[in-house]
Amino acid sequence: MNRSPLAPARFPDLPAVAGVDVRTARAGYKAWDRDDLTLALFRPGTSVAGVTTRSACPSPEVEWCRKALVLGTARALVVNAGNSNAFTGQRGREAVEAIAARVAGAIEALPSDVFVASTGVIGVPLPIDKAEAGIDAALATSGADWQAAAAAIATTDTFEKGASRRLSMGGHDVTLVGIAKGSGMIAPDMATMLAFVFTDAAVLPDALQAMLSRANAGSFSAITVDGDTSTSDTLLAFATGAAGNPTIESLDDNGAEPFAAALADLCRELALLVVRDGEGASKLIEVQVTGAVSDGSAHRVALSIANSPLVKTAIAGEDANWGRVVMAVGKAGEPAERDLLAIRFGATQVAREGSAVAGYDEAPVAAHLKGQEIEIGVDLGMGSGRATVWTCDLTHGYISINADYRS
Amino acid sequence: MNRSPLAPARFPDLPAVAGVDVRTARAGYKAWDRDDLTLALFRPGTSVAGVTTRSACPSPEVEWCRKALVLGTARALVVNAGNSNAFTGQRGREAVEAIAARVAGAIEALPSDVFVASTGVIGVPLPIDKAEAGIDAALATSGADWQAAAAAIATTDTFEKGASRRLSMGGHDVTLVGIAKGSGMIAPDMATMLAFVFTDAAVLPDALQAMLSRANAGSFSAITVDGDTSTSDTLLAFATGAAGNPTIESLDDNGAEPFAAALADLCRELALLVVRDGEGASKLIEVQVTGAVSDGSAHRVALSIANSPLVKTAIAGEDANWGRVVMAVGKAGEPAERDLLAIRFGATQVAREGSAVAGYDEAPVAAHLKGQEIEIGVDLGMGSGRATVWTCDLTHGYISINADYRS
Repeated sequence: MNRSPLAPARFPDLPAVAGVDVRTARAGYKAWDRDDLTLALFRPGTSVAGVTTRSACPSPEVEWCRKALVLGTARALVVNAGNSNAFTGQRGREAVEAIAARVAGAIEALPSDVFVASTGVIGVPLPIDKAEAGIDAALATSGADWQAAAAAIATTDTFEKGASRRLSMGGHDVTLVGIAKGSGMIAPDMATMLAFVFTDAAVLPDALQAMLSRANAGSFSAITVDGDTSTSDTLLAFATGAAGNPTIESLDDNGAEPFAAALADLCRELALLVVRDGEGASKLIEVQVTGAVSDGSAHRVALSIANSPLVKTAIAGEDANWGRVVMAVGKAGEPAERDLLAIRFGATQVAREGSAVAGYDEAPVAAHLKGQEIEIGVDLGMGSGRATVWTCDLTHGYISINADYRS
Repeated sequence: MNRSPLAPARFPDLPAVAGVDVRTARAGYKAWDRDDLTLALFRPGTSVAGVTTRSACPSPEVEWCRKALVLGTARALVVNAGNSNAFTGQRGREAVEAIAARVAGAIEALPSDVFVASTGVIGVPLPIDKAEAGIDAALATSGADWQAAAAAIATTDTFEKGASRRLSMGGHDVTLVGIAKGSGMIAPDMATMLAFVFTDAAVLPDALQAMLSRANAGSFSAITVDGDTSTSDTLLAFATGAAGNPTIESLDDNGAEPFAAALADLCRELALLVVRDGEGASKLIEVQVTGAVSDGSAHRVALSIANSPLVKTAIAGEDANWGRVVMAVGKAGEPAERDLLAIRFGATQVAREGSAVAGYDEAPVAAHLKGQEIEIGVDLGMGSGRATVWTCDLTHGYISINADYRS
């Protein structure tokens, strides 16, 4: 698979996170020549928070994480790539339990402190023997770097996705590092992929959960590649506390706000990397909706536009086909008035008050559409609700990847 | 554009409908060498019923028809192809009024007895001079055949779509003929295309409306090509009464039931023809959902499957990827239990009770997927709700048509 044309030039330099020890190993879930099991070990006292798919058919990993999240503490994370273990019945549940037990036994932790996520084909039980051998191999290695971990959690991704933030909290340097994988079955009914954030900040689980949920709303829940929501979507944040900052116990605490902002910013960067690696993507599209009756309504209208095959193919064709944007607004099922609607591509207003802007300058629109980063602005003229959603265009590449794939 | 591989071998022989006089003419809405204006004249006393798009941004034609439908009578229908006149503000409204006035003046009818539908590019006001010249030309010709009319209402369609039914009502032969056009921006928030049914039956408007709404639910509202709902969707039925049957005044009348069944059957045939001409379609997919908590819930689950790009590309690739069907059930937002779910392709059960059927015979599944008509069956195991929805696969053809199109 060719590297996405929207990929960053290189993987960033990511710092170590105190209290986190990451390793990768080759479990061999598929016949490929790469590491496909990632193991992260956390120091005792690590807080955890998470958001998982809203799919009614979640994987056993998602169910396991939901239960474990209630306790708020973590000692390890195992990520399997190449097999999602979703829709595998009792055998799938047994595989997750076996993984948690294996790691818990090795590090003298509780199984409920071991988080598990898997990604890949649906319907094939994860082979327990391969998982256990992979865990043993990972335990026997020394730490891997973040790029290796970002590569080991990937499936159809064409580049590794990682980002970091640093800030000072109560005189202590705090680090956040995140890695994520895409890149199909991406729709924002929460996260629709796997993403993990690691920080050495001291944050209690409830506060971490509140900040993560807020960060998710403006990042992983605001992206879509194909409108298809995965059964395995998982976003987890681990806070080891090794930085020694005064522990964040609630959102009102000193330092909570800048930490939450750094977390939200990091999540948005990771989410945009996922869109940049959307299957077949050649352009990144930002849809800004304003003037809706509420932020929620704006979000749904933005998603209707971002998920429309006709809008996405028009952008692929560099076609300023704003009529398709009107169509997508109209079908969203949200309050809208045709004769109040205004639409722009980039900075150029192309439609206003229910019809085309007479004689608008097509040159800047054409130039904007030839770029790799496209902005579609829609003002509904109804209220003050606003939302931004990111997606990519729909190209022959998406069809090739998904019609030629054999399960 | 090549004729769809799913097209019928030929256009059917369609009988004349007493009381209906159809003509076509060249208005020249686009630079093409074909008729693009259709005019149907009805004898006085013709009843009319209709269903229009639920888009919040409907075309002025749709708004005109909605108002005129309240009166229940029709004397003429004008269909313009190549320009939808949608999102054109006051100038678009004036074009519709001018068309109605021109025809009304020529046949001594009320403007509100003239129905108007347009299809094509969004955002360009329909040129009134071309419309008026086209109407005059149509009035000066003699009647066209149904295939000519079906061709004149088409846009990106690759074949003409028509069907007929005959029945006896109170000793009188009754005829129904329908024509329709697709083939992109097809999603079932009613009809998402233009379809017209003509009959010589005597049916009062309210009864006709009730029967048409019911027919629509199982036909045009049960198809999707790309999940994109048009701003111009219009289904109209005209009943001239020339057959001389005892007038159907309500659904309880003698003859109402067989007529309603024939109408529903005709609408379904037309709707399936629209799917068979879905942009880039190579396979017709029937999604049958059973065991839902209600018929409405089954319908929404079926649409979630039928609109999933990953399901549609899997079928294009002849891949029995039932994991993607699980995904689409899971994201539908409807009551579902992973461990009760059963899935089949054709007659072969591939998954049951939340996991794959161990060792199911893959040969009949592969053979079924190589065919042109694919059946996906999903039983949710929750209740007795059921629904059937039709769609087509998602291929490179769809991308080519829609990314290469310039507005």
